Amino acid sequence: MNISTISIGDELVFGEVVDTNSARIAERLYTAGFKVQRHLTVGDVESDITEAVRTLAGESEAVIVTGGLGPTADDITAMAAAKAAARRLVLNEEALAHVKVVTGKLGDSAFPLNEKQALLPAGATVIPNPTGTACGFHLTCGGCSLFFLPGVPNEMIRMLDESVIPFIQQKWKQRRFIRTRVLKVFGPSEAEVNSLVKGVAAPDAGVTVAFCVNFPEILVKLRAEGDDERHVAEALDRAGEKARQKLQGYLFAEDDDTIDSVVAALFRTKGVTLSLAESCTGGMVAKRITDIPGSSAYFLEGVVTYSNAAKMRTLDVSPRLLEEKGAVSSEVALAMARGMRNLSGSDIALAVTGIAGPEGGSAEKPVGTVFIALAGRSGCRATKYNFFGDREEVRTIASFTAMDWLRRHLLSL
Amino acid sequence: MNISTISIGDELVFGEVVDTNSARIAERLYTAGFKVQRHLTVGDVESDITEAVRTLAGESEAVIVTGGLGPTADDITAMAAAKAAARRLVLNEEALAHVKVVTGKLGDSAFPLNEKQALLPAGATVIPNPTGTACGFHLTCGGCSLFFLPGVPNEMIRMLDESVIPFIQQKWKQRRFIRTRVLKVFGPSEAEVNSLVKGVAAPDAGVTVAFCVNFPEILVKLRAEGDDERHVAEALDRAGEKARQKLQGYLFAEDDDTIDSVVAALFRTKGVTLSLAESCTGGMVAKRITDIPGSSAYFLEGVVTYSNAAKMRTLDVSPRLLEEKGAVSSEVALAMARGMRNLSGSDIALAVTGIAGPEGGSAEKPVGTVFIALAGRSGCRATKYNFFGDREEVRTIASFTAMDWLRRHLLSL
Repeated sequence: MNISTISIGDELVFGEVVDTNSARIAERLYTAGFKVQRHLTVGDVESDITEAVRTLAGESEAVIVTGGLGPTADDITAMAAAKAAARRLVLNEEALAHVKVVTGKLGDSAFPLNEKQALLPAGATVIPNPTGTACGFHLTCGGCSLFFLPGVPNEMIRMLDESVIPFIQQKWKQRRFIRTRVLKVFGPSEAEVNSLVKGVAAPDAGVTVAFCVNFPEILVKLRAEGDDERHVAEALDRAGEKARQKLQGYLFAEDDDTIDSVVAALFRTKGVTLSLAESCTGGMVAKRITDIPGSSAYFLEGVVTYSNAAKMRTLDVSPRLLEEKGAVSSEVALAMARGMRNLSGSDIALAVTGIAGPEGGSAEKPVGTVFIALAGRSGCRATKYNFFGDREEVRTIASFTAMDWLRRHLLSL
Repeated sequence: MNISTISIGDELVFGEVVDTNSARIAERLYTAGFKVQRHLTVGDVESDITEAVRTLAGESEAVIVTGGLGPTADDITAMAAAKAAARRLVLNEEALAHVKVVTGKLGDSAFPLNEKQALLPAGATVIPNPTGTACGFHLTCGGCSLFFLPGVPNEMIRMLDESVIPFIQQKWKQRRFIRTRVLKVFGPSEAEVNSLVKGVAAPDAGVTVAFCVNFPEILVKLRAEGDDERHVAEALDRAGEKARQKLQGYLFAEDDDTIDSVVAALFRTKGVTLSLAESCTGGMVAKRITDIPGSSAYFLEGVVTYSNAAKMRTLDVSPRLLEEKGAVSSEVALAMARGMRNLSGSDIALAVTGIAGPEGGSAEKPVGTVFIALAGRSGCRATKYNFFGDREEVRTIASFTAMDWLRRHLLSL
């Protein structure tokens, strides 16, 4: 079936507020087995709303509209809806009773204003709003079911879950089941990931594969769809297993897991302690580690040795090494990791030094040159990277790469 | 003039990702004096994209389209655009040269896939992308200017600012002038800010005031609108001056400035050096400081002393103090700041220690208890805070408060 959504509000078309309602509605419907085909945003302009409703009602079996049901003069959705459906606005007794109860509870004195919220298109059915003054309403126009909900996200979602989706499920018995899995990959480019997972999509079994960049990760999105719930789940499992084999090593997490949560789980499981010595990432790796609750169990200490003096004093990096090789060098990265491990007594110590830019680059060591080193019980190693991007991107990918080093080390990859 | 926007992506219509591009485009255009009339979102379905482009091109003088310009099979915007405008797809030499340069820099071996990104509708003009492989393009269809940009927000915004908006300004001389100013406030609640700036709005002069929470900041948005550029600018200046007087002390930045950039500018101007000792914020303050280019001029060193052992060893906090007062205490915060200042030799040292949660709280020191201390030439002081929120919120407001301490200290407030 064909569902569309409309978000109404000047604050949306002026870009003052990001519309999260349309994504939340789409996600809720998707999980319930329905797809939104298109979404439209218009401002608080009656003719724009009327035209939007009329157009999408002509193309869809259901349209969910949010916003413009408040008490103030710029809330004109009910009026526009009435025009689109060629109805009159009438005082809806159920809506009026609701408004009276809620404004009474809120001790709201501006009652005449709120009474406007009980004026609904003739023939509309009230959609109850348990938490606010604005009732929603349901209206049939041509063959299309129109659902009007307030724009306040919490109120909207509750009304969607409690009234609209059950109605849709009841009316359009869903025979489609949709299940998704997200595989998170780091290392290869989007194009390389694309060619790695060739053959994972199985159109005959309803399995599709899509890609999405969440810098610096690549997300591989597997989606299975069909009219038999068990078959759909099995097809997704098979595709997931296939993709996992093709991506192994690069695949670091699935679904709600992140590189940070995966690394945290590994530290907890392995009972290994960590310390960090950062230069160009300036605390970003420590932030990622300490973002996770319970990190104090394995994270002992971090230092941000931004100056050479700090590298010498705190990490015992030799002045000669800094002079001869430069602060951004394999040798200094190794010395920082070793120095940090000695200082903290942790099982492993990781060091990052590099040039994040925009200043400080040279022909030999351009902006984006980063060295990562890890010191552990069995020795020490360092690698040079040439990252591409601005200061924020270089720092982000460097800290992500550092997290991936920890993951690989703890998994002995 | 009549501008529309289209966002393309299955991830948007499935609700997996919230579309921030349409709001950012609307906001940028609004600031430049143009209003977006409607916005449409469709999935990666060729017929849906073609129809969306064709419909909005028929109704608008300019349409800005984002998404679907990547190298993979689900990126079909160029093909759909060609169909909508009844053109062929041809290899665009300029786009090809660009793709070659960027993939070369990235060391990407999967070149044939990226070559697809150089197939553009015949007659399209390339919109340069300084930071990614996907070129944008400009196409005229009927009387409508169509602009196609990649969906990656950073790339999109830069191309919008550098190419699309200048083009629109050049072609459609604007006669309506809109100027905005954002005053950023930290400390009082939204309701308090609201009552502080009473009387700043001047409806007769076209000046409105709106509020917006960007946790933990409150944004006061002043907007002046009219058909005389000078009058609009003057009305906004007057309102800005009034608001500044009412908000002084709490007002930390305006427009594109942030607490981080303001603190950075103060450090540069005052020629003062800094070191940091963090516990519960785990590197977040150091990250904020080093986010700003050139911070190495004043930021000497930071430590994340997560364990008590690290506080003792690195910062010379006495074991007895830790035992008697606890790691989260005014005394330990002061000792951390003093220890850090001694260690680094910086002019000022700031320390943060607290309980970010979800574990570790007690009746006496609940989650959200945070101590901030600052040691300088003229002494040392500490303050206790009781922040409210989850782990992420407590860490965010604690690191923001730390930055505000630095600002107030450097301004002698």
